[in-house]
Amino acid sequence: MAAQVFFSVSMSLDGFIAPESPEELMGRQWMELQQWVFRQRHFRENLKLGKGGEEGRDNDIVREAYRRTGASVMGKRMFDAGEHAWPDEAPFHTPVFVVTREQRDPWERPGGTTFHFVNDGIESALDQAREAAGDRDVRIAGGGATILEYVNAGLVDEFSIALAPVLFGAGIRLFEGVDAARVALEQVRAEPSSRVTHLTYAVRER
Amino acid sequence: MAAQVFFSVSMSLDGFIAPESPEELMGRQWMELQQWVFRQRHFRENLKLGKGGEEGRDNDIVREAYRRTGASVMGKRMFDAGEHAWPDEAPFHTPVFVVTREQRDPWERPGGTTFHFVNDGIESALDQAREAAGDRDVRIAGGGATILEYVNAGLVDEFSIALAPVLFGAGIRLFEGVDAARVALEQVRAEPSSRVTHLTYAVRER
Repeated sequence: MAAQVFFSVSMSLDGFIAPESPEELMGRQWMELQQWVFRQRHFRENLKLGKGGEEGRDNDIVREAYRRTGASVMGKRMFDAGEHAWPDEAPFHTPVFVVTREQRDPWERPGGTTFHFVNDGIESALDQAREAAGDRDVRIAGGGATILEYVNAGLVDEFSIALAPVLFGAGIRLFEGVDAARVALEQVRAEPSSRVTHLTYAVRER
Repeated sequence: MAAQVFFSVSMSLDGFIAPESPEELMGRQWMELQQWVFRQRHFRENLKLGKGGEEGRDNDIVREAYRRTGASVMGKRMFDAGEHAWPDEAPFHTPVFVVTREQRDPWERPGGTTFHFVNDGIESALDQAREAAGDRDVRIAGGGATILEYVNAGLVDEFSIALAPVLFGAGIRLFEGVDAARVALEQVRAEPSSRVTHLTYAVRER
């Protein structure tokens, strides 16, 4: 099977993936949205959050999302937020292509992550990521606006959503501005874990 | 167990339960959202849509939602839309309490449905529905605004959502205006069928 382009996010039941402002990122709602993943051993080790953690099905799902990924694409806002938050050994361990207007030399981190700064648009970034990923998949890492750009351009093959039993009421919606007339979805898998429901959809163009 | 107050709706992946205007109610997106239920034998028989239909797990889930319901509550808009659309033998077969300012005598239909018109608010309508339902549950039938009023008033015990692999992009969101600070959810069940994912959440007050 050819490499897939996918995203994988946690979403509240009412469709939000982040609070309105970055200052709220450690607020209660966001923590409730993300708490399932912060408990997983693979996630904790990868982000250097400390030893231990759960090793059940949720952990397998987190690890699988990393294992299948041969390269990632992200927007400038996600990179800027992560640049100072990620550990030195950045949690990707693959090439990462950052869509930005900033011109900058590749930034190589210990542990196999190299950030490449792409100035000529989302399609170019994806082409380079596909090339780098080889047989493995390309993950559109985020943020939400970048994911939606790729979805609306018809460039995403698969949605992976951890639907959390949380209501936000306000914030940043994953699908705000989606081109609904273009994207048809097929439900591939829905798997409840103890804390969230892992949903997988394949994209079919109309 | 005491009778539960629940709602049961189909929701798009991006959180919509209806198009913006009633004229679109037979439009493509809404049909895509609802198509799973229109195929079910129990639903077809109950709405007098014709014989036949599927008899698998989706059908069991539809039937169970009707069987557990001892009385329903609905808003005036849903009643107005349904009054001329439902068959003579209205599809409830129980008392239905309509929250409205209209004063009107109870309207008895063949097959066990009687519509009662309640002029003194949502709590009164629910009290009357609980009384009528006895040991069975009370369904907040709709529409979305009425469901949300009950949710925000802390009067709903359970959410039942058939999450459909459809994106609306615009329309009426189930949780628009939800009091997120009040409602805490616990994931009770997530069951994929061939067309949708049936999600059940229990409400816990914060």
